Amino acid sequence: MARIVDIIERTIQVSSSMRNADIGFDEMTATALVVVSDVMRQGKPVVGLAFDSIGRYAHGFLVNERMGPRLLSADPSLYACADGPGIDPLRAWSVMMRNEKAGGHGERAGAVGLLDAALWDLQAKLLDQPLWKMLCDRFPGASQPDRVTVYASGGHYQAGEAPQRLRDELCAYQDLGYHHFKIKAGGASGGIDQTRIEAALSALTAGQTLAVDFNAGLQSQTADAAIEGLAGYGLAWIEEPVDPLDYRLLAQLRARHPMPMSTGENLFSLADVRNLLRHGGLDSTRDFINVDISLSYGIPEYLRILDLAAQAGWARRAFVPHAGHLFALHVVGGLGLGGHETAPSHPLLGGFPAGSTLADGMLCLPDAPGVGFEAHAGLCKVFEPMLRP
Amino acid sequence: MARIVDIIERTIQVSSSMRNADIGFDEMTATALVVVSDVMRQGKPVVGLAFDSIGRYAHGFLVNERMGPRLLSADPSLYACADGPGIDPLRAWSVMMRNEKAGGHGERAGAVGLLDAALWDLQAKLLDQPLWKMLCDRFPGASQPDRVTVYASGGHYQAGEAPQRLRDELCAYQDLGYHHFKIKAGGASGGIDQTRIEAALSALTAGQTLAVDFNAGLQSQTADAAIEGLAGYGLAWIEEPVDPLDYRLLAQLRARHPMPMSTGENLFSLADVRNLLRHGGLDSTRDFINVDISLSYGIPEYLRILDLAAQAGWARRAFVPHAGHLFALHVVGGLGLGGHETAPSHPLLGGFPAGSTLADGMLCLPDAPGVGFEAHAGLCKVFEPMLRP
Repeated sequence: MARIVDIIERTIQVSSSMRNADIGFDEMTATALVVVSDVMRQGKPVVGLAFDSIGRYAHGFLVNERMGPRLLSADPSLYACADGPGIDPLRAWSVMMRNEKAGGHGERAGAVGLLDAALWDLQAKLLDQPLWKMLCDRFPGASQPDRVTVYASGGHYQAGEAPQRLRDELCAYQDLGYHHFKIKAGGASGGIDQTRIEAALSALTAGQTLAVDFNAGLQSQTADAAIEGLAGYGLAWIEEPVDPLDYRLLAQLRARHPMPMSTGENLFSLADVRNLLRHGGLDSTRDFINVDISLSYGIPEYLRILDLAAQAGWARRAFVPHAGHLFALHVVGGLGLGGHETAPSHPLLGGFPAGSTLADGMLCLPDAPGVGFEAHAGLCKVFEPMLRP
Repeated sequence: MARIVDIIERTIQVSSSMRNADIGFDEMTATALVVVSDVMRQGKPVVGLAFDSIGRYAHGFLVNERMGPRLLSADPSLYACADGPGIDPLRAWSVMMRNEKAGGHGERAGAVGLLDAALWDLQAKLLDQPLWKMLCDRFPGASQPDRVTVYASGGHYQAGEAPQRLRDELCAYQDLGYHHFKIKAGGASGGIDQTRIEAALSALTAGQTLAVDFNAGLQSQTADAAIEGLAGYGLAWIEEPVDPLDYRLLAQLRARHPMPMSTGENLFSLADVRNLLRHGGLDSTRDFINVDISLSYGIPEYLRILDLAAQAGWARRAFVPHAGHLFALHVVGGLGLGGHETAPSHPLLGGFPAGSTLADGMLCLPDAPGVGFEAHAGLCKVFEPMLRP
């Protein structure tokens, strides 16, 4: 029976000058997390690692104040695997959520999801398996669990940029092996978005696709015209056109415009996704759901969301999670989801663990145990000082 | 032009052995907050004070990491009153919410609400007015802004309790001047709730009322029977029967049962309340909304909620905020809301500021400037060490 003996967190500055239609990132932070077990291998404790999704700031304070102490003080039998060695993150989830009231799915969901991600990394290492394989074995259904359709998310607004810069950015992603791309929209006026989209499309070749992300930037008065203005471009989807909780407005837009739509990165719970499915008017045959696994209470809640959606006719292929980076790649592969967002230009999160290969828009995940933070060029440098004895 | 020069927060342990149908309070915390201005009076800076609502843990970390630094680094012209001395909390709100993404209305809403409450206390002191008067002057409509209908919230589940204890508890509240009461429900089985309600009702005299609070404890399979079992008691309302975000289930219960219903203490934003009004099936002629002002981004968001509700036919009298304690008392009075929850048995929050009078279930607020934390027996002891130079 493994015991969790320490939890270490660091707030990492991930600020940049980029903008979307909703916010700037000039003061952005994220949390790097290490969960230490009492299992020793080669003289070192086996640890689980996790790194925040970007966009909603660090979660270390909640890890320290609420969820971490609950895990550290719990009897290990409360989170032990029922039928094998190590820990069961599904059982640890209930320990972390003790005495948490219903509703209010904000920062708390990200703190629990971050700890959950580290627990899965830890357990995969204890079982000597890559996370994608452990997930596929436990929750079967993925036909190619080590392969993930990825898209390159970029095209942020930058001061003084020319359309050529956007074209160059997408060409650089193509050189890395990407076939699918997403750029920002809704953060500029006067036809600038159209110019940007046309510049991006000019870089694409046959079979490649472009989506745009409004980051909740449209209002009820402007949304129809803004979406109508993109009708002729054959976009893969338009993402989060309006406030994530304005289900009625989304349903109206869904009814009026034919393009595939996509939303959910700012819904952080089963209860919120249930409302999206009930009231948001989405169409399971053409739309996508972007709930961020790591910001939404982690895999246990995500499995409940997939089950609920399945009852409403949604295939796992319609789920294309926001962010979550390396961890989410494994979940997308292991559970057979539709694809995953990546940020190839991000100075810290760009790239994949050593042993991954990207070609024709498809990433092949490596066989090393766990998630692979230790084999990622940027993130290994974040964790290395946290792992020193 | 006043400048905010310091923000001091302390996490206060408010643990107790009590339970509701949702959680226990054995590890509960809350934040005490002091906002320090550069305005000096009698050799001391004028400060604004605020104290968390209880139930969703302390918010100091977010104050320190995000909202506080934004306020402290902002040019005072960004939050100055447009037409008078001091600061305008409505303007400070936008400073605090800079670079915060849409959705995810959880802990963040409580941190902003806490700072907002302290800013109103500060500004009321700068204007030498009680907060209820300042609010009534700025947002007219209350006919008796210094008078608040209050109810005594208690009757938590306690290990090994006898019904007589509950009756004694309500008699003690009657002795304090209360006429309206609320006890917990949904946290026990086998007719225990009925026994508790009958014990409580046996204490009441003519004109006095009893409500019950399910604290989101009912499930779709059990909710109908549980509510039906309370049909004969003439309850003032049944509160939060199910998950706060399950609007469809609430609408079904609303349609099937005649008793007044009440919910909203675990919805923390305009966007969530909009969904409650659209999808929750509530009836503005008999139901109540309990959004907690201080946990829901404070007065600026609450004013937006009142405006939205007014468009849907809801009078301010239908708003009976959860918790928020001394601060919320002033808001309920100043804006002419329907009433306010108080916790007379709480070891820290029980009682009112000196100069208040409670009779026939109605509280008369004092004329001292601000909210009155300094004149409250329990809370003045919390703030006193924080105010030492």
